[in-house]
Amino acid sequence: MHISGFINFRTLAVIGLGLIGGSFARDIKRLGLAERVLGYEINPEYRKLIHKQNFVDYLGDKPDEELSKAELILLAVPVKTFEEIIPKILPYISKKVIITDVGSVKLPLIKLMNRPDYKNIRFIGGHPIAGSEYFGPSAAKDNLFAGKRLILTPFIESDPIVVERVRSMWVSIGAIVSEMEPKSHDELFASVSHLPHLLAYASIQAISNSESPDVLKHSGAGLKDFSRIASSSPTMWSDIFLENQNNLIPKISIFKEILNELEDSILKKDKEKLIKILENAKTERDRWMT
Amino acid sequence: MHISGFINFRTLAVIGLGLIGGSFARDIKRLGLAERVLGYEINPEYRKLIHKQNFVDYLGDKPDEELSKAELILLAVPVKTFEEIIPKILPYISKKVIITDVGSVKLPLIKLMNRPDYKNIRFIGGHPIAGSEYFGPSAAKDNLFAGKRLILTPFIESDPIVVERVRSMWVSIGAIVSEMEPKSHDELFASVSHLPHLLAYASIQAISNSESPDVLKHSGAGLKDFSRIASSSPTMWSDIFLENQNNLIPKISIFKEILNELEDSILKKDKEKLIKILENAKTERDRWMT
Repeated sequence: MHISGFINFRTLAVIGLGLIGGSFARDIKRLGLAERVLGYEINPEYRKLIHKQNFVDYLGDKPDEELSKAELILLAVPVKTFEEIIPKILPYISKKVIITDVGSVKLPLIKLMNRPDYKNIRFIGGHPIAGSEYFGPSAAKDNLFAGKRLILTPFIESDPIVVERVRSMWVSIGAIVSEMEPKSHDELFASVSHLPHLLAYASIQAISNSESPDVLKHSGAGLKDFSRIASSSPTMWSDIFLENQNNLIPKISIFKEILNELEDSILKKDKEKLIKILENAKTERDRWMT
Repeated sequence: MHISGFINFRTLAVIGLGLIGGSFARDIKRLGLAERVLGYEINPEYRKLIHKQNFVDYLGDKPDEELSKAELILLAVPVKTFEEIIPKILPYISKKVIITDVGSVKLPLIKLMNRPDYKNIRFIGGHPIAGSEYFGPSAAKDNLFAGKRLILTPFIESDPIVVERVRSMWVSIGAIVSEMEPKSHDELFASVSHLPHLLAYASIQAISNSESPDVLKHSGAGLKDFSRIASSSPTMWSDIFLENQNNLIPKISIFKEILNELEDSILKKDKEKLIKILENAKTERDRWMT
């Protein structure tokens, strides 16, 4: 199968076959965008599932000789593990390989790839906005990226041919691709994604510290939706919080200031001020969602 | 129409015809649970909509002589306005009337109804867990309460006949009714509802303070669900926060402690501690949701 504008890969490799890597591999294979899809997954339980579901043509537990055939490698592992994984794949990769990723924090990996010994690797960072509280290969599914945003974060030395190749690959599986500076990306996502995740985890912990579990059945749809992201992967999110701490910590401070302002207006029974903050938040939220 | 176990009302009145009051009136009328439904709504824009949608048999802008015919009055107005509304309905109500409400905070109204001059009114508090970020009569709909929880908060002097009458009314429109002590109710809902609403408003305000609106289109489903309740009615929620401040303020403190702990473990790069908190929160949330 050949999709207009897209040049098929002969061999493509996915390292990490969870929700994102697994769904990506499924789409590539199903749509025939590569003749052969290699998968690498360290977790033996995950490997069992992947074998059953048959969404790669070759499955290894760690980088090996097969990897040298890959024209593109997608890293779909927790962001903190990049530093360990790059040296493990280096002995096997071809000089022409394109490496891309799907991490929620971009600058640390780009800095890593700018090290003198990695500088010749053709790398471009990517971030699909397609996460979920469900994770692992059992959550992987067809068309996960269809209609979802994908942000590429080229930097000054990125090869435009590489950027274009990766862009057209994502477009071929339905993603809406845009570009952003890596630094702006990490700052923005600290606000719109990492802070909300941290607050969702914190609020569930606060509620469970102060209420007995059996009364929680009384909670409604509000808490259910608000806290959905607190069911996300603790390993993945602890990595994201740690990798993006320079951006996240200032956002926590801004949040705390607002929370203190709200608390203060409640304590002082300052209804006017309270309504003003709530109205402003509602207006902003309604505007984003339209 | 006569639903088994339920004795129809001849006349029933709803004061405040927003999402909850409007949906309630629609169900009562549609299912014929009262021969006549009276509605009172102070907002002229709302009245226009209600006239069009025809979900009451009589519509007034303020309590009047008609109200004396009501066997049951449902108060569906913001909780802070109870104190103003009770004296306005008093001159018109029959001695036998049952008054109930749908407010998210129970103790202040129960204290109010225990005042010597109100003590003879047959009152029972209620709280349907059926809110939404949409409000006003345009959001009112059939079957809003079907399968939703409704909490009755009888107190020591509540007449069991009154409790039973109100219970069977809610059951007749599909609600799952349970009982709770008013004090426990207010403490629990400070955690599972009022705190999450406050945090959702605060986080949207924090994000909008630190990012330009045009970049927010990049946010994903996580933020959308997390912040849905920040689109709720500012008037209604400022009232709830103020009315339940005695319970809410301590919950804010517990939340802040957890947030500080998380922040601290990020600053100290204490991955183990961070994962432990996230895992605990995930476990709790997953358990509630099953």
